[in-house]
Amino acid sequence: MRHNVLGGKMNRGLTVAETLRILKRGEELSKEEIFKANLLGWCIEWLQAFFLVSDDIMDNSKTRRGQPCWYRVGGVGMVAINDAFILESAIYFFLKKHFKKDAYYVELIELFHETTYQTELGQLLDLITAPEDDIDLTRFSIEKHAFIVRYKTAYYSFYLPVALAMHMAGVKDEAAFKQAEDILLPLGEYFQVQDDYLDCYGKPEVIGKIGTDIEDNKCSWLINQALDKATPEQVKVLHENYGRRAEANVVAVKEVYNQIGVEGLFKAYEEESYTRLNALIAKLDHPLLSQDVFTSFMKRIYKRTK
Amino acid sequence: MRHNVLGGKMNRGLTVAETLRILKRGEELSKEEIFKANLLGWCIEWLQAFFLVSDDIMDNSKTRRGQPCWYRVGGVGMVAINDAFILESAIYFFLKKHFKKDAYYVELIELFHETTYQTELGQLLDLITAPEDDIDLTRFSIEKHAFIVRYKTAYYSFYLPVALAMHMAGVKDEAAFKQAEDILLPLGEYFQVQDDYLDCYGKPEVIGKIGTDIEDNKCSWLINQALDKATPEQVKVLHENYGRRAEANVVAVKEVYNQIGVEGLFKAYEEESYTRLNALIAKLDHPLLSQDVFTSFMKRIYKRTK
Repeated sequence: MRHNVLGGKMNRGLTVAETLRILKRGEELSKEEIFKANLLGWCIEWLQAFFLVSDDIMDNSKTRRGQPCWYRVGGVGMVAINDAFILESAIYFFLKKHFKKDAYYVELIELFHETTYQTELGQLLDLITAPEDDIDLTRFSIEKHAFIVRYKTAYYSFYLPVALAMHMAGVKDEAAFKQAEDILLPLGEYFQVQDDYLDCYGKPEVIGKIGTDIEDNKCSWLINQALDKATPEQVKVLHENYGRRAEANVVAVKEVYNQIGVEGLFKAYEEESYTRLNALIAKLDHPLLSQDVFTSFMKRIYKRTK
Repeated sequence: MRHNVLGGKMNRGLTVAETLRILKRGEELSKEEIFKANLLGWCIEWLQAFFLVSDDIMDNSKTRRGQPCWYRVGGVGMVAINDAFILESAIYFFLKKHFKKDAYYVELIELFHETTYQTELGQLLDLITAPEDDIDLTRFSIEKHAFIVRYKTAYYSFYLPVALAMHMAGVKDEAAFKQAEDILLPLGEYFQVQDDYLDCYGKPEVIGKIGTDIEDNKCSWLINQALDKATPEQVKVLHENYGRRAEANVVAVKEVYNQIGVEGLFKAYEEESYTRLNALIAKLDHPLLSQDVFTSFMKRIYKRTK
């Protein structure tokens, strides 16, 4: 728990209570409501720990949040797989302990199950699209990138915290959840595209790491844009250099990115997303949802540099 | 699914419908009841597949059910971890699809969660008590063996199928579940002790495999009995030879087993268990439970040779 649940930014976890506050329209939350919203927030952090412990094994990662990955800690090794399971099991232990008597207990359980499943499907597609030891850029596409991002990241990072708060606020109408999802999934996609951009063009001293998506053969937004726009010659350069460790390979890929103007494509995408998402938010008309839930997300992420 | 869910004996899965039949005291099961009982049976088989796929990675196993372990199949590798997660997620997908409208839907979910958690705790204790690369028999004890067996095997193999059938039969009384558990956990423990015995003394042509518990440094009932009864000299031989691959090491361990009379200890344990478990069954007096549920288990496993 200490090694794997703690140490993150806790954005996802903190969003539950924040969203509940907005949904309650200024009404002061009781101590119990704050406790329970934060408990659900911690459940997301536990879910994330479950994913991170196992993803690091699957990706053969070395470090996470500035310390060795759990499976690399002395005496742990592959036992980390079972430890990941235990982190997941804790979620349902917490839910039973604190929400069994609530009318929305089953909805919470089902939401965690479904989000877990969606994340696993995204992870599966990501792993089979971009295996580290078998580079084949013809498997990449902008559509696959969108699916991977929505399933692997957006459901658990964007939709889950808001949907949990909605359950706590007593929302029952399926249509309200659908409207929230219809904004939060594209918002999560935009967030992940920024992540892909910053991996290559962000300042390491600002983002806190040196990006390695090119070396790691990642199905990133940048490579998909480049493949989409490249001439046959440029495609050849990308195929010959992507997913390789040598500095010269990385430089060759970045050169094609520059020729194509991938940075400009991102800036245009950022503007287009901002306009499109704000229009989606403005159209939101469900009586139980507040536009502020979504504008507060938007404010935090638009043109972020880290 | 095909590689990992199919191919077992399906004893656990088949037990759900069989138990339901006994609990309904001869009343013919409807087509729907048979379907749903078997669906719950399949959920146990899916749960087992989730455990086996991941256990095989943690144990560095080579084969399972006469074919390569899933993670050893070409192109799979560590992605098998995520595949195991998906197998687990399928359980809750099935439960929602087929039991959402039933009064005992939440009980089914909670039962699967709790059984999963118990199995993970048993697996954890097993992995840290007997890591393959760090042999230290002082970590072993008869009490630890009992805990590992109950948590790692008995809950999901013995208690789970019966408790699922009890929910389907409309049993609500906690005391009935407690009484079933109080018989099924020791029954599962007895079953696993037989397994440990057969690993060393069973006929390979009958049990379908060549036992390797001694080589694998397993916290088996046999080594625990031997350590308990051994002279200081015999303990020394066990410490020097257990958990090692060479034929001479295995022979040395088996020699100590023979000197101590471990086979005789097992025969005595088998008789004692038979008497003790039958007495437990005879004392069972809950109106919603039939002794036949447990005697049918007992008949199938007493003095089994495979």
